Amino acid sequence: MKATVVTIGDEILIGQIVDTNTVSIARHLNSAGITVAEKISVADDADAICDTVRRALSASDLVIITGGLGPTKDDITKYTLAEMFGSRLIYNETEAEHIRTLLARRGIEFGQLNRSQAMVPECCTVLHNAHGTAPGMWFDCGDDRSKVVVSLPGVPFEMEHLMQDEVMPRIKSRFELHSIVHRTMITRGIAESVLAATIASWEDALPAGVKLAYLPSPNIVRLRLSAYDVDGRQMSAVIDNEFSKLYNIIPDNIVGFEDATVERLVHELLTQRGATLAVAESCTGGAIASKFTAMAGASAYFMCGVVSYSNESKRDVLGVDMNAIERDGAVSEIVARQMAEGARRVSGADYAVSTTGIAGPTGGSRNKPVGTVWFGIATPHGSYAVMRNSGTDRGQIIARASAYAIELLLKELTK
Amino acid sequence: MKATVVTIGDEILIGQIVDTNTVSIARHLNSAGITVAEKISVADDADAICDTVRRALSASDLVIITGGLGPTKDDITKYTLAEMFGSRLIYNETEAEHIRTLLARRGIEFGQLNRSQAMVPECCTVLHNAHGTAPGMWFDCGDDRSKVVVSLPGVPFEMEHLMQDEVMPRIKSRFELHSIVHRTMITRGIAESVLAATIASWEDALPAGVKLAYLPSPNIVRLRLSAYDVDGRQMSAVIDNEFSKLYNIIPDNIVGFEDATVERLVHELLTQRGATLAVAESCTGGAIASKFTAMAGASAYFMCGVVSYSNESKRDVLGVDMNAIERDGAVSEIVARQMAEGARRVSGADYAVSTTGIAGPTGGSRNKPVGTVWFGIATPHGSYAVMRNSGTDRGQIIARASAYAIELLLKELTK
Repeated sequence: MKATVVTIGDEILIGQIVDTNTVSIARHLNSAGITVAEKISVADDADAICDTVRRALSASDLVIITGGLGPTKDDITKYTLAEMFGSRLIYNETEAEHIRTLLARRGIEFGQLNRSQAMVPECCTVLHNAHGTAPGMWFDCGDDRSKVVVSLPGVPFEMEHLMQDEVMPRIKSRFELHSIVHRTMITRGIAESVLAATIASWEDALPAGVKLAYLPSPNIVRLRLSAYDVDGRQMSAVIDNEFSKLYNIIPDNIVGFEDATVERLVHELLTQRGATLAVAESCTGGAIASKFTAMAGASAYFMCGVVSYSNESKRDVLGVDMNAIERDGAVSEIVARQMAEGARRVSGADYAVSTTGIAGPTGGSRNKPVGTVWFGIATPHGSYAVMRNSGTDRGQIIARASAYAIELLLKELTK
Repeated sequence: MKATVVTIGDEILIGQIVDTNTVSIARHLNSAGITVAEKISVADDADAICDTVRRALSASDLVIITGGLGPTKDDITKYTLAEMFGSRLIYNETEAEHIRTLLARRGIEFGQLNRSQAMVPECCTVLHNAHGTAPGMWFDCGDDRSKVVVSLPGVPFEMEHLMQDEVMPRIKSRFELHSIVHRTMITRGIAESVLAATIASWEDALPAGVKLAYLPSPNIVRLRLSAYDVDGRQMSAVIDNEFSKLYNIIPDNIVGFEDATVERLVHELLTQRGATLAVAESCTGGAIASKFTAMAGASAYFMCGVVSYSNESKRDVLGVDMNAIERDGAVSEIVARQMAEGARRVSGADYAVSTTGIAGPTGGSRNKPVGTVWFGIATPHGSYAVMRNSGTDRGQIIARASAYAIELLLKELTK
């Protein structure tokens, strides 16, 4: 069972947006045992759309299209598909009513352009878009109607809900699916080529049908084992067994599996223990708080975050000693520690972490160059601070320092 | 002049990574007047790579490939291209020496896998990768050698430097290029369908050859005018003129051009005036603070942010009246106002904005469904709060509520 994912929109081809939709679609399809053979992006152009969808249909059983369903003139996907499938557009009362309700909530009148959003090709099954105004569409096609084309809006969360609630259940009941097994182990602190040499004999001895891939990023290499068109249950056991062997080769370099992020581990540990967290951020500017609060359920443990950018707020909100700031500077061991202690005291949380550093591009000095970051940790057992240089670019420094602060929390929780 | 961008790697097709490389490549090519006709992602599979590169070459003058050049066994792009072009691999001393130097800096020995990275197809021009160990490759091909295939590593910053320093100069000296002009005007505070109706007569009167696109995101619609294969200088003037007309139709909704954001406007206004800002966030969880502190220079005006997730932190850090929370709930007009007032008082900032809402998925009720968000504003002239439903999905609610809070700040600053 093969699928092609097609994204439509000039904005992708001129590099105006990053396409995250196909990531989500590919994950849904893979987890149901459908191989994505190809991913194609084309312009908002009727000929290009037709050519691409036809070619995709000849190579795949399933074509999933996103984009080009908005209310404006540059959005032509619906009209192009209707023409391609020789179907006229009809007014769908249910969708019209839904669009009217959504707009009313935002105080917007239902206009001519919204009316056009409720028009759908007669030959399609309408996929109800609970979170937006552009309905999705499901077309049965091919000579024996054995193939499927699905058209979804390009707005990421609308597309995501439609995939989950409307598309995947229909695909699962419509096609007979085989299994694909992908499992990923996340390693850290070992360069790709060194890792490959270290695990070479393990890699050479992998069972037939199991494929290894290396995905490097700074300080992290993800190792993925994949097996296609197999008995999923049996293959999962085989892969688990291989990862166990790998664990024994590099036990100190294993972070976890799949999407296991360090913040998710901290989230789970705090939730399980009924322990609470506070954050005091200077250079990371809210990035640490954002990572925790983005996860549903964070309110069970996340008490308070303070983004104490000014020295006065470090003093007034967190109780940092102004003399310490004047003597050692805001980016210093003592200030980092006092920030964490202050966050813990003020919020009543069990654990607190703090950051204070120079995110740049200005503000660096010979002794404290851009990238210098002090991290404070306060727990029921005491407090301390550590320093780490976190890079040279503002965005990189914020990202790395946030990640390291959360790693320090994990270390405390697993001590 | 047409190009196809090909990304190679199973990780893209199974949805394990977000592809940002083609965004960067598309921007480079567009700015040189080269249209990207198609963007294709395929697996680490020799047949798929060959088929795709051949098809791309028949449709385009230039094919740019990224990925599959690493040192490990799953990286097959180099071997596949060498075979496809009938060329043997030869050892390149210069590249080998460069790889040896890079590894030595990280304390890693030059091994067999690194040696294989210095092997390149005899028929290609080697593109020196100053920042990494996998060299890029330039192949002249087609019957009259008028077409080009370029293969680059998938590591984003290595690819970026190679595009800029090695690929673009060669493309510019090799091909005769026409101009493409893209300009984008950023509008705010007006829904896409309402905007389209408001500017319909302007859109209908656009000169021939100028194409309009709408790109909606929370609170923002980007309007892009594009013209292809033209005299760039003249067309820039035509597009500037059209945007001037548009400005006169919706003067209050213009944020700026290209990458302009509402937070950037607020950042500039505060900096110019020497005014300061504080933020008190509940449901947005640090997202507003992050947006400001991500911008270099934010420390000039950003005093303090408080992520007051717990009721106690609303009381203890921001001075919110616990009776008000008990009577009206944490998500209420009075709590939003008191949060903003508290943030302003505690930080000594001139302006403060607050959010308190239900980000979901749980916590909603009949009177206060998920998505209900109260926003507080406190200024030297007083304080108030407004309510706005911000959606149904946690990520969407955080994004929309952050955008709306910043919008309210802008309104205060431009009153």
